[in-house]
Amino acid sequence: MIVRTDATALDEADVLAFARARFSLPPSVIYLDGNSLGALPRRTAARVADTITREWGQRLIGSWNDAGTGSGGWIDAPARIGAKIARLIGAAADEVIVTDSVSIDIFKLAAAALSLRPGRRTIVTEAGNFPTDVYMLEGLSRLSGCDLRIVASDDVIEAMDENVAVVVLTQTHYRTGAVRDLAATTAAAHAAGALICWDLSHSTGAIAVDLTAANADMAVGCGYKFLNGGPGAPAYVHVARRHQGALDQPLSGWMGHAAPFAFDEAYRPAAGITRMQSGTPGVIGLAALASGVATFDGVDMTAVAAKSAALGDLLIALVEERCPEMGIACPRTERGAHVSLRHPHAYELAQALIARGVVGDFRPPDLLRLGLPALYVRFVDVWDAVDHLAAILASGEWREPRFAVRQAVT
Amino acid sequence: MIVRTDATALDEADVLAFARARFSLPPSVIYLDGNSLGALPRRTAARVADTITREWGQRLIGSWNDAGTGSGGWIDAPARIGAKIARLIGAAADEVIVTDSVSIDIFKLAAAALSLRPGRRTIVTEAGNFPTDVYMLEGLSRLSGCDLRIVASDDVIEAMDENVAVVVLTQTHYRTGAVRDLAATTAAAHAAGALICWDLSHSTGAIAVDLTAANADMAVGCGYKFLNGGPGAPAYVHVARRHQGALDQPLSGWMGHAAPFAFDEAYRPAAGITRMQSGTPGVIGLAALASGVATFDGVDMTAVAAKSAALGDLLIALVEERCPEMGIACPRTERGAHVSLRHPHAYELAQALIARGVVGDFRPPDLLRLGLPALYVRFVDVWDAVDHLAAILASGEWREPRFAVRQAVT
Repeated sequence: MIVRTDATALDEADVLAFARARFSLPPSVIYLDGNSLGALPRRTAARVADTITREWGQRLIGSWNDAGTGSGGWIDAPARIGAKIARLIGAAADEVIVTDSVSIDIFKLAAAALSLRPGRRTIVTEAGNFPTDVYMLEGLSRLSGCDLRIVASDDVIEAMDENVAVVVLTQTHYRTGAVRDLAATTAAAHAAGALICWDLSHSTGAIAVDLTAANADMAVGCGYKFLNGGPGAPAYVHVARRHQGALDQPLSGWMGHAAPFAFDEAYRPAAGITRMQSGTPGVIGLAALASGVATFDGVDMTAVAAKSAALGDLLIALVEERCPEMGIACPRTERGAHVSLRHPHAYELAQALIARGVVGDFRPPDLLRLGLPALYVRFVDVWDAVDHLAAILASGEWREPRFAVRQAVT
Repeated sequence: MIVRTDATALDEADVLAFARARFSLPPSVIYLDGNSLGALPRRTAARVADTITREWGQRLIGSWNDAGTGSGGWIDAPARIGAKIARLIGAAADEVIVTDSVSIDIFKLAAAALSLRPGRRTIVTEAGNFPTDVYMLEGLSRLSGCDLRIVASDDVIEAMDENVAVVVLTQTHYRTGAVRDLAATTAAAHAAGALICWDLSHSTGAIAVDLTAANADMAVGCGYKFLNGGPGAPAYVHVARRHQGALDQPLSGWMGHAAPFAFDEAYRPAAGITRMQSGTPGVIGLAALASGVATFDGVDMTAVAAKSAALGDLLIALVEERCPEMGIACPRTERGAHVSLRHPHAYELAQALIARGVVGDFRPPDLLRLGLPALYVRFVDVWDAVDHLAAILASGEWREPRFAVRQAVT
């Protein structure tokens, strides 16, 4: 039997325990939804206030060139933050830039990949991928006439034939937490002459990722989950250096131009990753994202991966011991930093947990999803959360009608 | 001769004088660049701090449904702010939503217009339009195979033939401040069977706009200029209600889905303007934009238009009287809320003005651009700015080498 002091002992041995002080968490909440919305870093409010009051209010347009912080101007913030994210995903600093949303960036990257494989007109993705990725590829297909091939998860490699320009896959699945083998899948795409574009939204800041070792072509990731950039934070894109000069990115706005302030009539793409930008970057959101990414300063990603796995292992072991009604809907290994449990009344269970101060989320039709960001979730939080879940199941309190009321966003 | 007390008398009679107290302006600066980056509203820092500290930090994901402010959740913020912008441009509340950037939105709207005019494959725009608008249309053309016809400004109406699906024009020109006749140009497009998409970036919050009276089809506008939403604030899109249900928007992300949190496999567009959204909205930037738009609360747009015109008239009269070296590069009437002056050394003049605390900007090759937002620019600011310009020209101080040093962003 696993007892609470087993969990506190793990916390005492945790090499990442120092990082929790970088966050401002409500005292009465066990927050297990950082895979949906990362927690608030302690420094973000002051950082954003400075951007608003001093950089904008006092320096006005001058901050585009020099925001007075000693690290350049607003105009370079997307590349500056991208360079810091690069370390977390095993990319070179000049291969990553912050821009737009994951949705918009999926469109940009897939279209860019088509431009790099002239003569090939098929995009492959998997059924059950995060919906917006598929929706955006559908939009690209409708507009450009390219073919979109949506195949079952296990058939992805088989679907890579000589017509395929790019394979768009998510590394860590948003529902199950299952992690695809980055290097092996990339190698399979390359063997078929295709490029690969990875959605790392549930991987970045959660597990160890090495895009360079995998020889990956492109990637996109979310700023507001494990990167703690704030609700709706901008996303990042990665393009391997070897592709940057040749790609045609159709959302070709002025911030991707070689000389935006020359106001040239014709579009001339910037060298390098800069051409992945489109419109004017949202500076206030970038300030919050910079603060979120800074929560990883000095943090070793192999330690993050190890702790994520250990937190999940503990959670699964406790659930098996104390909540046998719950199905384990995630893999035992090769798992991201969230755990999914199955129950026909997962929605009501999620609501009953929230009422007890344990915040996870529900994914239809029957998944209770619990996120385990290594920087601020403790082993004792996992123990306490399962203790609440066991109590809810034992008491049947989840049957109270108030827990069945559907929220707009779940 | 116009004397300084003429200007102060105009300020005393100004019905919008109360609005200046809504902004936090540096005391030693005459800020005439609100057409590029609106000034900081006094309430923005507190508003954004509340979004970060309480809505995000304390309520966490719960704020998507209910941010605890009595006005709903984050999920509805794009529509809520859009409804407030609608009043400023003569649109219905459900015809406007905040999303992405002007660049991205131009792409969405032009593509949506193509979907509404099957069989027509040409987009018309004008040479000299704001560059990013043209760049995005070029990208759409490369990707979709539609034709982009870029014609001289005076030839736009002539170019509207039976192949034209949509005409994309800017109402108030970013260089000259010239304002196109919204109703007449819209009518000409409709007479040719085409739709029209207006870029109102330099019109919104600057002059009186009535999209409904003009029977306009679509519009886009900038959040960080006259709306005071902060650097890189999100943009808004307008689609007339009659088109909303039929259009196909190819950047079809999950926030434009009829039921984003059902996680359906196939894209099914939301009813109404919501389908113009793509990815997750940037909540912190939206909070700043909401505060910016609120600077127009209780403000009559005809008064704004009248004051913008009067400020520009005064500026032009003073320049003609005291700075005959400067060419007047903007119209005398039908002008937006900025004035453009021509001089072969406009760059150096702009820098010399900044050194004296008068902030305008330079647009290549030879324009000094001075913005006159009616909510916070006073007539006496105009008088003082021209006084400085006259002194700079008389002394030749603009010839100092430091004023020729080029900045990355100008």
